[in-house]
Amino acid sequence: MLAVHTGQGKGKSTAAFGMALRAWSAGWSIGVFQFVKSPKWKVGEETALRALGATGQGGSVVWHKMGEGWSWIQRPGTERDHAVEAAEGWAQIKRDLAAETYRFYVLDEFTYPIKWGWVDIADVVETLRERPGNQHVVVTGRDAHPDLLEAADLVTEMTKVRHPMDAGRKGQQGIEW
Amino acid sequence: MLAVHTGQGKGKSTAAFGMALRAWSAGWSIGVFQFVKSPKWKVGEETALRALGATGQGGSVVWHKMGEGWSWIQRPGTERDHAVEAAEGWAQIKRDLAAETYRFYVLDEFTYPIKWGWVDIADVVETLRERPGNQHVVVTGRDAHPDLLEAADLVTEMTKVRHPMDAGRKGQQGIEW
Repeated sequence: MLAVHTGQGKGKSTAAFGMALRAWSAGWSIGVFQFVKSPKWKVGEETALRALGATGQGGSVVWHKMGEGWSWIQRPGTERDHAVEAAEGWAQIKRDLAAETYRFYVLDEFTYPIKWGWVDIADVVETLRERPGNQHVVVTGRDAHPDLLEAADLVTEMTKVRHPMDAGRKGQQGIEW
Repeated sequence: MLAVHTGQGKGKSTAAFGMALRAWSAGWSIGVFQFVKSPKWKVGEETALRALGATGQGGSVVWHKMGEGWSWIQRPGTERDHAVEAAEGWAQIKRDLAAETYRFYVLDEFTYPIKWGWVDIADVVETLRERPGNQHVVVTGRDAHPDLLEAADLVTEMTKVRHPMDAGRKGQQGIEW
């Protein structure tokens, strides 16, 4: 299965890590690839999933942070490095998919390097479509590329719900929670 | 924080269990109350979160299934029992909130007993609004009551995304993924 969690609301990555709980219980090897640094690092989820992997009761857990110590926040002169690191991350994912290294992949915030042109969408779609075996992939992030959505078996959009009463109380529309 | 995960899409419960990973890492005690039986039991998530709780490295995990061996699927003559069990489950949650038994609560599929009138929405809202201490609650399920949404600090709607190409290919609208 290829799933995409997109939209402006919360829960995209969180739901992907929740899916990893089920994968772990099924004994599946899990590979997490995080493409966006702080404050989106999700240290708690990493600690918990690593602890699960260490129990030896379920699947293994390997956690990759692209460009450790490196930020996606664009600063002058650094964009090229970010693009290179994103491309390296994707190249590693391609190798792992070809080798069937994991059974369950979380490509966290992977929509952004695609959006910014640092990873080629056609390559992503072709690679994911033709991945061998029974490898499951979840991609998270806002603004998912239409071609990625088209390739996905399941697309869920997480939407921030405006609070109906709140808008009335404050005498204005568009207050978001 | 009181969060509600609602909508017709996937990920409502999964994201709540993902939040529990963070809570566990923070050392918070976790109480899960599941209000809907099979096929929504989420055995994998239960196994994983129980295993995490058993590591002793993070918070504790207690997992309650309302009416073990009992189904929300309505069969003749059983509705009254379901209503009683739902009310008992909610009464236990009220006791736990008053006693600050847990720091993080997952009230999974709790929107349904509210919807079906088995639990009083006014009581739910008042209890959650006036809960003592720093107890965090996540409620999941479709068709969340408007009063619950109003009381929530954060509402996320998980939406099934229609596949744009699919509708075209099949010559019809409304094919959902």
